[in-house]
Amino acid sequence: MSVALVGAGPGDPGLITVRGLELLRACDVLVYDRLVAAELVAEAPASALRIARDRLEQEEVNALLVAHGRRGRRVVRLKGGDPFLFGRGGEEALALAGAGVPFEIVPGVSSLTAAPAAAGIPVTHRGSASAVTAFAAHDVEALDAAALARVPGTLVAFMGLARLARLVERLVTAGKPASTPSAVVAAATTDRQRVVSAPLGALPAAARGLPTPALVVIGEVASFRAELGAMRRSAA
Amino acid sequence: MSVALVGAGPGDPGLITVRGLELLRACDVLVYDRLVAAELVAEAPASALRIARDRLEQEEVNALLVAHGRRGRRVVRLKGGDPFLFGRGGEEALALAGAGVPFEIVPGVSSLTAAPAAAGIPVTHRGSASAVTAFAAHDVEALDAAALARVPGTLVAFMGLARLARLVERLVTAGKPASTPSAVVAAATTDRQRVVSAPLGALPAAARGLPTPALVVIGEVASFRAELGAMRRSAA
Repeated sequence: MSVALVGAGPGDPGLITVRGLELLRACDVLVYDRLVAAELVAEAPASALRIARDRLEQEEVNALLVAHGRRGRRVVRLKGGDPFLFGRGGEEALALAGAGVPFEIVPGVSSLTAAPAAAGIPVTHRGSASAVTAFAAHDVEALDAAALARVPGTLVAFMGLARLARLVERLVTAGKPASTPSAVVAAATTDRQRVVSAPLGALPAAARGLPTPALVVIGEVASFRAELGAMRRSAA
Repeated sequence: MSVALVGAGPGDPGLITVRGLELLRACDVLVYDRLVAAELVAEAPASALRIARDRLEQEEVNALLVAHGRRGRRVVRLKGGDPFLFGRGGEEALALAGAGVPFEIVPGVSSLTAAPAAAGIPVTHRGSASAVTAFAAHDVEALDAAALARVPGTLVAFMGLARLARLVERLVTAGKPASTPSAVVAAATTDRQRVVSAPLGALPAAARGLPTPALVVIGEVASFRAELGAMRRSAA
């Protein structure tokens, strides 16, 4: 196996998988995202080539993985969260498959569950939410707000903080009650974690100034924060 | 910290988190679900009290966690997937919080991403799906099929295999095209993994006889299986 697309988890370095850490510790080449914990980057062998993805276009990343993979190097592509949930892992996998380079997907703990959990919020809960919809909210105007406002269960917006006021406006206009319990979880599972909760209509004001990355959670389950939010969050 | 609700991941024992394994190896009491890999149960210390959850009602599990937690024992409650995504972790957390027993949530890799990934299917993909809705499908008649048929992106049904024909009928009647690429992934990331893919309308016939647990994936992304399905799946 030459290239592994590995999910690093939500932030806390202890939340990588055992398999992911094993591959990381044995790699020749590490290509990593900005959001990956420094502690995990440090787990690669001292001799490994380390490449930060920041300055590279997606096509350049794809080409890099193919090139190193073709030479038979053990390449780890380390991504925040899960490679296949808003991680663009599909694009890299298609590039590798197209080039005939063998690869492996090692899934990771996604912020989808881990960020709300770290704030005391279960995304599903018997009697409160038997569904959860995760969506990318960087392009707020492109969202089907009517469908999102109507789907039952919890809504979780990725990349929704930058234009939160407009996101909330669109959902409320489409029929989502402004009174819906909601929360924003920033820098989840790290030492910099911050959480605010408020009814949906008041969320933009409450969340002002929070850092990214941040997840927006909308639904009855957000009210559990009052009872469960005091727990210690997972930390390695 | 006395009680930890720990996600065991989707099946492959290598997909537990580093933090989860660390707690498991140091526990006094292990309460585990039927779907958790035997290799993980074996990781608890030989001296640990092992309790299979199978025969217990949820209220009995809650009481057990509270009782052992109160005595200050290091309790690990090991659940398939993620504790807070169809894992009933919220109910256990509320019981612990209500009893004043300190606890920790250690999120896990959910089948939501891991099962499709093991079949070569990214649940989101630029240009194909910028949202994913996960829903519990054990009570098919209770589903809001109209809302599910309309929400954009990928649909992922948990516990949907037993009444798959009726689930598909409801979605198609509500407007989901019968031609939508779809797949069922059974026993994902284990040696018993089986995958079938078919257009939504033909899925029930194609999936006949598959074992549980199984995840149903509905959406354009299911078509990536043709290109990505040949990869080796993650295995420890």
